[in-house]
Amino acid sequence: WWSPGQAVVRAAASSGGPRPPYTTLAVSQPQQFVTHVELHRPEKLNAMSRAEMVELFSELAGNPDCRVVVFSGAGKMFTAGIDLMDMASDVLQPVGEDTARISWNLRKKIAEYQETFSVIERCPKPVVVAVHGACIGGGVDLITACDIRLCTQDAWFQVKEVDVGLAADVGTLQRLPKVIGSRSLVNELALTARKMFADEAASSGLVSRVFADKEAMMAGAMELAGEIAGRSPVAVQGTKVNLLYSRDHSVAEGLDYMASWNMSMLQTEDVMKSAQAALEKKSPKTVVFSKL
Amino acid sequence: WWSPGQAVVRAAASSGGPRPPYTTLAVSQPQQFVTHVELHRPEKLNAMSRAEMVELFSELAGNPDCRVVVFSGAGKMFTAGIDLMDMASDVLQPVGEDTARISWNLRKKIAEYQETFSVIERCPKPVVVAVHGACIGGGVDLITACDIRLCTQDAWFQVKEVDVGLAADVGTLQRLPKVIGSRSLVNELALTARKMFADEAASSGLVSRVFADKEAMMAGAMELAGEIAGRSPVAVQGTKVNLLYSRDHSVAEGLDYMASWNMSMLQTEDVMKSAQAALEKKSPKTVVFSKL
Amino acid sequence: WWSPGQAVVRAAASSGGPRPPYTTLAVSQPQQFVTHVELHRPEKLNAMSRAEMVELFSELAGNPDCRVVVFSGAGKMFTAGIDLMDMASDVLQPVGEDTARISWNLRKKIAEYQETFSVIERCPKPVVVAVHGACIGGGVDLITACDIRLCTQDAWFQVKEVDVGLAADVGTLQRLPKVIGSRSLVNELALTARKMFADEAASSGLVSRVFADKEAMMAGAMELAGEIAGRSPVAVQGTKVNLLYSRDHSVAEGLDYMASWNMSMLQTEDVMKSAQAALEKKSPKTVVFSKL
Amino acid sequence: WWSPGQAVVRAAASSGGPRPPYTTLAVSQPQQFVTHVELHRPEKLNAMSRAEMVELFSELAGNPDCRVVVFSGAGKMFTAGIDLMDMASDVLQPVGEDTARISWNLRKKIAEYQETFSVIERCPKPVVVAVHGACIGGGVDLITACDIRLCTQDAWFQVKEVDVGLAADVGTLQRLPKVIGSRSLVNELALTARKMFADEAASSGLVSRVFADKEAMMAGAMELAGEIAGRSPVAVQGTKVNLLYSRDHSVAEGLDYMASWNMSMLQTEDVMKSAQAALEKKSPKTVVFSKL
Amino acid sequence: WWSPGQAVVRAAASSGGPRPPYTTLAVSQPQQFVTHVELHRPEKLNAMSRAEMVELFSELAGNPDCRVVVFSGAGKMFTAGIDLMDMASDVLQPVGEDTARISWNLRKKIAEYQETFSVIERCPKPVVVAVHGACIGGGVDLITACDIRLCTQDAWFQVKEVDVGLAADVGTLQRLPKVIGSRSLVNELALTARKMFADEAASSGLVSRVFADKEAMMAGAMELAGEIAGRSPVAVQGTKVNLLYSRDHSVAEGLDYMASWNMSMLQTEDVMKSAQAALEKKSPKTVVFSKL
Amino acid sequence: WWSPGQAVVRAAASSGGPRPPYTTLAVSQPQQFVTHVELHRPEKLNAMSRAEMVELFSELAGNPDCRVVVFSGAGKMFTAGIDLMDMASDVLQPVGEDTARISWNLRKKIAEYQETFSVIERCPKPVVVAVHGACIGGGVDLITACDIRLCTQDAWFQVKEVDVGLAADVGTLQRLPKVIGSRSLVNELALTARKMFADEAASSGLVSRVFADKEAMMAGAMELAGEIAGRSPVAVQGTKVNLLYSRDHSVAEGLDYMASWNMSMLQTEDVMKSAQAALEKKSPKTVVFSKL
Repeated sequence: WWSPGQAVVRAAASSGGPRPPYTTLAVSQPQQFVTHVELHRPEKLNAMSRAEMVELFSELAGNPDCRVVVFSGAGKMFTAGIDLMDMASDVLQPVGEDTARISWNLRKKIAEYQETFSVIERCPKPVVVAVHGACIGGGVDLITACDIRLCTQDAWFQVKEVDVGLAADVGTLQRLPKVIGSRSLVNELALTARKMFADEAASSGLVSRVFADKEAMMAGAMELAGEIAGRSPVAVQGTKVNLLYSRDHSVAEGLDYMASWNMSMLQTEDVMKSAQAALEKKSPKTVVFSKL
Repeated sequence: WWSPGQAVVRAAASSGGPRPPYTTLAVSQPQQFVTHVELHRPEKLNAMSRAEMVELFSELAGNPDCRVVVFSGAGKMFTAGIDLMDMASDVLQPVGEDTARISWNLRKKIAEYQETFSVIERCPKPVVVAVHGACIGGGVDLITACDIRLCTQDAWFQVKEVDVGLAADVGTLQRLPKVIGSRSLVNELALTARKMFADEAASSGLVSRVFADKEAMMAGAMELAGEIAGRSPVAVQGTKVNLLYSRDHSVAEGLDYMASWNMSMLQTEDVMKSAQAALEKKSPKTVVFSKL
Repeated sequence: WWSPGQAVVRAAASSGGPRPPYTTLAVSQPQQFVTHVELHRPEKLNAMSRAEMVELFSELAGNPDCRVVVFSGAGKMFTAGIDLMDMASDVLQPVGEDTARISWNLRKKIAEYQETFSVIERCPKPVVVAVHGACIGGGVDLITACDIRLCTQDAWFQVKEVDVGLAADVGTLQRLPKVIGSRSLVNELALTARKMFADEAASSGLVSRVFADKEAMMAGAMELAGEIAGRSPVAVQGTKVNLLYSRDHSVAEGLDYMASWNMSMLQTEDVMKSAQAALEKKSPKTVVFSKL
Repeated sequence: WWSPGQAVVRAAASSGGPRPPYTTLAVSQPQQFVTHVELHRPEKLNAMSRAEMVELFSELAGNPDCRVVVFSGAGKMFTAGIDLMDMASDVLQPVGEDTARISWNLRKKIAEYQETFSVIERCPKPVVVAVHGACIGGGVDLITACDIRLCTQDAWFQVKEVDVGLAADVGTLQRLPKVIGSRSLVNELALTARKMFADEAASSGLVSRVFADKEAMMAGAMELAGEIAGRSPVAVQGTKVNLLYSRDHSVAEGLDYMASWNMSMLQTEDVMKSAQAALEKKSPKTVVFSKL
Repeated sequence: WWSPGQAVVRAAASSGGPRPPYTTLAVSQPQQFVTHVELHRPEKLNAMSRAEMVELFSELAGNPDCRVVVFSGAGKMFTAGIDLMDMASDVLQPVGEDTARISWNLRKKIAEYQETFSVIERCPKPVVVAVHGACIGGGVDLITACDIRLCTQDAWFQVKEVDVGLAADVGTLQRLPKVIGSRSLVNELALTARKMFADEAASSGLVSRVFADKEAMMAGAMELAGEIAGRSPVAVQGTKVNLLYSRDHSVAEGLDYMASWNMSMLQTEDVMKSAQAALEKKSPKTVVFSKL
Repeated sequence: WWSPGQAVVRAAASSGGPRPPYTTLAVSQPQQFVTHVELHRPEKLNAMSRAEMVELFSELAGNPDCRVVVFSGAGKMFTAGIDLMDMASDVLQPVGEDTARISWNLRKKIAEYQETFSVIERCPKPVVVAVHGACIGGGVDLITACDIRLCTQDAWFQVKEVDVGLAADVGTLQRLPKVIGSRSLVNELALTARKMFADEAASSGLVSRVFADKEAMMAGAMELAGEIAGRSPVAVQGTKVNLLYSRDHSVAEGLDYMASWNMSMLQTEDVMKSAQAALEKKSPKTVVFSKL
């Protein structure tokens, strides 16, 4: 339902790699209000760095020039997961003078790893994730914390943790069942670590759309991001906040929270501006909204 | 799996328009125990009237001659949403001497609009909604509060609110994620206001079935309603009540509530009557159940 | 993605029928760590016996030789549900000197029937259920309490209760909506008692996979069970426990529970053994894990 | 900490009895913004009328001239509970053609009776209840739905329901344990129907204060109501709403709701007006706040 | 408010010690419908036996001759807690081949110990516990799972666990804060293991009443139990069930559950019998209620 | 039950004022494992600094030399609340181009202020707070986030917010009702802003103990802290974590969490060390526990 413009495609095509302070993430702004975050550590199969993820998304959460994020991976695949070397020292050589103290320290580590992805969820700007090639282990934790999932025809997904002797503990077991509708499939993926390919990802609802190749996907992701970036940030970010609230509460509680939220947010000038545009048969994307 | 009878089709075909006290809803009884509610305000694109919805469904909730409701729209489309003129005065010209007082009054208004659709959910009679053409904004709030959704091949759905500068606050953000399985799709619809057409509505599970045209759909809806109306109202309404309870509670809590519910409801004569019919190889629809 | 071995197929093919203490369940061990439970009461259409289910799954929960269960039905169909004769005396001839006392006793009975299937959920070993032919009433309660669902092309499913005058009260109304993504479909099935066939079961996500016939399905089920049985039981059972916890809690609560769970479970030797196998490019199934 | 003024005492002393549309409630306004509601049906021991309670508190909820309510009883005692004659016909002669239908109708009745008191809780204006003499059965349901409880030295309280063969079902079992700290006492009162006198009511925290006689209590209640009525209604009513929210949610959820509530309410001019008064060493009661 | 009768005092005075199948519990029936359970293992300071507690309370839950339980300790003190020898082997010599497997087994053990006291809570008959002398460790877990707490002037309570290097894990940390109102006191007791004596137990609401000595307490406990036993068991047990439900749910959820509970329970003949007694100015204790 | 030692009294008597990086908090270690935090900004009536509180308690949370915190105020009073000058600029001159944007920014500010006290709750080391003189506004938010509350005879407490036109939004409305048992008192304090003096603070359970003067209180606080510091940190901190978990969950959920927590924590060497001390009739305070 959208057709990518040329400028957008070019912008998305070459990120140029990470710039300080980031060493594993390339951050750019291919369109106004659209931030492109690229996992860029091809030599390590785009293994994610915990600290950089937290730093970046905390920054984006408060940055008014960012209204939507496109997240993708550079090189041959999306990501092979969390950096095993990082994790090995944390998990395989745990510190503490007895089992209880080792457990106490491990719990802190697990909570820190969980934060790597929860920070995406807490960021009120929608995150569109675009997956090509492999998306393994921590990659699945990552994408289930994003808002909209796209992939290429050659993408595949693997909840890998059971293969290395552990229950996935940084988000997949909590979020995957709330992201796709078939519980039998969720259980099968998590209990067998089998790969799921693009077609099943689409039919199961994990991704909203499959693209022929990465170039088409990036163009599609940017176009979609543009649609979101062009709308009222008060409306868009309030929508994300309340969709997440609803996921974890009853309908009655969600309605009550929504009413208390919108009693102020409806007083935005954006409603009048948008209504005016609608009366003039213009797209909401033509409206200039104040920063948020 | 069902084939519409002629009488039913005729009954559904012509509603004759609203009769007092309703001015926007045509209410009729095409079959025993089946109430047909038709949004009938074609000149206003079937914009919904808050007060009439609440009045009607409160009445139906206690009316023993109604065991199931079929809800549809007259004219060219299902509905363009809540009446913008109603809403504009409420929302765009809010009353109050400072921001807090305006907020206080807006919150009351939002709660009243939410009630327009929550009243459908609280009505213990199942509501089958049949959508043709456009279903926009408040229309999506409405159908997600119904129990079974059907549509025609030409139907389309649009979570429109973000286009007018606000987060959807009368039910869509709360109910849509609990109605379809793909969270990526829910987010995309709510954040971009894009249209979703009948095929995607079916594959995503928003509707159970797509029909070639409105006539076929209405026949199908009436047949389906007849299936429900012919069964024990104690069983049917207890099923609706407990399905809704389960949506908002853990499995353990749902089981406990169910046990406390059925400790009385199992003492219905309907069980014996139904068992008798089963032994005689008759359909449960041949049984005459007492009023409820 | 898996191809059944010959031995497994043979093992699965003939169970030889129940052995004491069971009279309705045939229990065997076709592969190491895989328990095959077969409903084996063909003369009664595999009607389930409450007491035997509870006894068996309580035993399996603590049996280290069982790491995964395959559950299937002998004869012409999966199951016609709970034994009506059992239930009739419980429900149709309730005991008690007034309505309150009858209710009190009925509540106890309902809770006992609920336990028949909750015991499957509480067993930390994953249960793969393989359905051929009819799966009616209590059969649906049963399969929604299992972890992974498979079926043959000739399978069909029916939430039958509304046909006999009651709201399904032993698990279907609580679990089915959390097992498949389309709420419209769930409501339709529960309110009309219509049959759902294999294709719709697959497209709706009720089952993960449809097989041409029972032999193929049993081979597939055994192969799948073998995949699970070959992985670390600490990882597999921790995964089941946490997936169930997540179903009934918010994401934040699920993450917190997971961290407290894994602070000890990560200290398993299975992680090192699995990592070693991975380094040596061996399947995790080649590792010998200690009993659990 | 307060000393009653003469005018207030006089105002409180004589209500003159009910005026239309009320026949059991005398409603007056002894001070600006203070509404005095008096149960006034001495010939029936102040038995409460369900319909009038709901009508009155629904009205007060939206009436800007009411900022706080004082609730008391006329004559010899506070109240002997719900009108037994009303209730007898509802409960002892239940309507319905079988047990299930009788149950269905009884559930509706119970819900209506519960509403009699829940309407007090939902009214955002604080309710100070002043009890003298007997407070029995429905009286306890009533006072636990109020915000602040006062009594005279001769007051006594009785959770009477167990004496008439039923579990208290219109609020006491739900609210009393959240109103006083000793669960052992709550259980004892509810299981034995014993009377609790003023001293124990004070030491257990059921009431905040005991007065020598009714005149002193009414003076105290009016003075207390005056303190509340003189403060910002935005602050006072927001406090009631959030205290009730907190009762039923975790601390984290309560904080989140509070932040979403106050993001608009802090924008009230009342903060500046109150701060100004504080700088000038004036009581907040000297400030004129806009209506709410 | 009650005066003990002679017969009751005698009955309570001498239990004669345990009879099979119990070796640590003396069970007798000093009054109709009142079961007296006495911890009777003076040589081991009344250390509790897990298995016997579970067996006994499971039996009492379904025994119509038991309508209320009085629980006390024989000899010099109430109880010194769980049998350390039992526990030592379970906890100090844990079984399992690595930390994860030891943890897995410990979790099962903890759950079993928790069940020792949860079984009291699940038993629908109210339990009045009468404490004299020391009540230490597991003793506090026990009494917080009971419904009404009484003690002698020489009683003292100690949350002992922190002294032996562990967080109390069989109920005290979960139930004590919901049993008394001062959180500062709960924290102090649990974090310092200091003793709390009878006066503070009374003023904090842990116990409802303090008696001069054990004889007076047992007489008081029996009289109180008699009050409960003499009332409608439908009313009494429904009250316990709903009070426990309310503890763990919001007020709105508690009211909803209550309505679904009482829609059947109000149909008891006990209401009419009790009302009749009230009209005749008789005590409800004179009514003969059918068994439950 | 404890008597202060001389050294402790001296240590507590003079803090010497803040040292970098703190300018408003004096931090010292009067005993091993006991951290004394003193609000030290007498010229500003000990107005709290948000940033320093967060920094300090985040540090203490991970500092093994701190096992318990004593929190008190220097000079004439405990604290007059949050620094009004800080807050005025945040709240009275809000930033944003329309009401929605101002609300968005205010919500962030409120969340930051809430964090000032939530950081105390999240710190697993118990916090004993010792109040003398005035404790106003933010002071009440602070003390309700602490674990054990003590005060002097001249202390008084005031929930001040309603006096300045706002509902208390940084913790009091959420935590106070879970800290004391009388809801009538909580409501009265929050709705009238009246002062509560030491005796009522004690009888209502807000504080565990009242001391004659500040010197006696500090000695008492230090002695109490010493009791906690001398016990196993695995036991003490696990107790705090689980008491907080229990506050916000049902008993069943609390027990489940506890079992998953202690399955590792019971494997501490501290249990054996403590048991050994007990056998030798030594105080647990004589044991040397490893760091945590």
